[in-house]
Amino acid sequence: MGNILNGKEVAEALKQKLKVEVDELRKKGVVPTLSIVIVGDRADSAAYIKGAVKRCGEIGIECNVTELPQDLSQNEFIEVIHRQNADKKIHGIMIMRPLPSQISEDVVKYEISPAKDVDCFNPINVSKVMSGEEGGFAPCTPSAVMEILHHYGIDPKGKKTVIVGRSMVVGRPLAMMLLKENATITICHTRTINLAEETSRAEILIAAAGKIKMIKKDMVKEGAVVIDVGINFDENGRMCGDVDFDEVSPAAGMITPVPGGVGAVTSTVLAKHVIEACKMQS
Amino acid sequence: MGNILNGKEVAEALKQKLKVEVDELRKKGVVPTLSIVIVGDRADSAAYIKGAVKRCGEIGIECNVTELPQDLSQNEFIEVIHRQNADKKIHGIMIMRPLPSQISEDVVKYEISPAKDVDCFNPINVSKVMSGEEGGFAPCTPSAVMEILHHYGIDPKGKKTVIVGRSMVVGRPLAMMLLKENATITICHTRTINLAEETSRAEILIAAAGKIKMIKKDMVKEGAVVIDVGINFDENGRMCGDVDFDEVSPAAGMITPVPGGVGAVTSTVLAKHVIEACKMQS
Repeated sequence: MGNILNGKEVAEALKQKLKVEVDELRKKGVVPTLSIVIVGDRADSAAYIKGAVKRCGEIGIECNVTELPQDLSQNEFIEVIHRQNADKKIHGIMIMRPLPSQISEDVVKYEISPAKDVDCFNPINVSKVMSGEEGGFAPCTPSAVMEILHHYGIDPKGKKTVIVGRSMVVGRPLAMMLLKENATITICHTRTINLAEETSRAEILIAAAGKIKMIKKDMVKEGAVVIDVGINFDENGRMCGDVDFDEVSPAAGMITPVPGGVGAVTSTVLAKHVIEACKMQS
Repeated sequence: MGNILNGKEVAEALKQKLKVEVDELRKKGVVPTLSIVIVGDRADSAAYIKGAVKRCGEIGIECNVTELPQDLSQNEFIEVIHRQNADKKIHGIMIMRPLPSQISEDVVKYEISPAKDVDCFNPINVSKVMSGEEGGFAPCTPSAVMEILHHYGIDPKGKKTVIVGRSMVVGRPLAMMLLKENATITICHTRTINLAEETSRAEILIAAAGKIKMIKKDMVKEGAVVIDVGINFDENGRMCGDVDFDEVSPAAGMITPVPGGVGAVTSTVLAKHVIEACKMQS
């Protein structure tokens, strides 16, 4: 059985570090503050917000949730963002996506101040992730993957690292972040012809395809580090990842479970980004 | 002997297409115009500019070169860029890099209008390359690689495509552009442990490392498409690529020579971007 890469442990260790930083900021009279903006009702967003608010509270970060009506116009939405950009008490802004169809993400993404854009919505932060430039914010989920690797002392340098999935929220930015740490990167996706051939070469395998239990035992190299970014629900409503954990875990060297893996770290990474934003603005 | 992917032929075919487009624009009274901005003297830049001006002229694009003094301040440089952004007669702006040290590229890159940024300097265009969003400009060199593939009907879809080199002017943007066309992408670099193992898996191999003749015969799969982005000079001052052409060409299925390969296409791609910019602005 592979060793478990325990997301809760990673999040807990990071949380303790962040609490110290928040204490220092609060002693100087600065209260790190996150604004979460949601347009309309979405059950998945509501669950995410609940977790983020709880985690921020534990760390000492103030959290304001702005709930906006489903039929809000794009201009009204932009006004809200501009007001929050200008509000010196707000250090980080997280806009819940997807937005309703009358609000174009390709338009409004330019409106959030890059300095407050703690989940990498603004293209300026996307560009920084691609170039490896410091001082920006990567999306929280790939950042959570990097936190897990760092926590367990897994250095991707020179390692054959295979990512399954090429989304803008995980696969692509994660490829760039791992490249910055000198991994040899392969990006696979639905059009990859022999996926198993690619994945079984991986010393570090990242599953971020959004397809339930698609990574089987014969697709994984003995002893590999397996990071499962997937969040899916099986026919019994049980949460599971993109990796068939029961099959794969005996072969893997180290593996993240779902739940309790990457997903357990993202809200703490969000808190980390808010604190970084707060420090840059103070 | 592998078939030669002839850059001059690709450039010539593209040129004929672009001339028709320019004729149409000129009939409407619009003269597509490129501004090239250079600060100080650099022999390599001068050679590039000469080629670009010649090629643009053949296609019917007006070309203005602004030569600025080596000791120009950052603010003065930004003023020049802002003036050209506002000038309706200029459709594309190409800033020759590197800039002198008193001008920070990380600062001034935000100042060029993304709509006129025909060589992908502004982060907004970098972000569009990463996300695959339309309406931006990729850097000219990786775009030239894509032109060659398209011209010869080489579809990267599902192909094992290995890029050696991870620069922001070639390796990384090219990875994203090939990913958009559904290639399975591997990015290698100086820290890759067994480079030959990676490159010899490639159905399409792109050498963009900037290291003279580093790709040897035993690193290339029989029948592979080999694209050489390198421009180096040997001990006799002869231009050669990152691929050891004499050794590799008998094994390769198709291969670009140096000179006469990718480098022969870049200035025509630049012209293409100027025409696209002109159409978007007219």
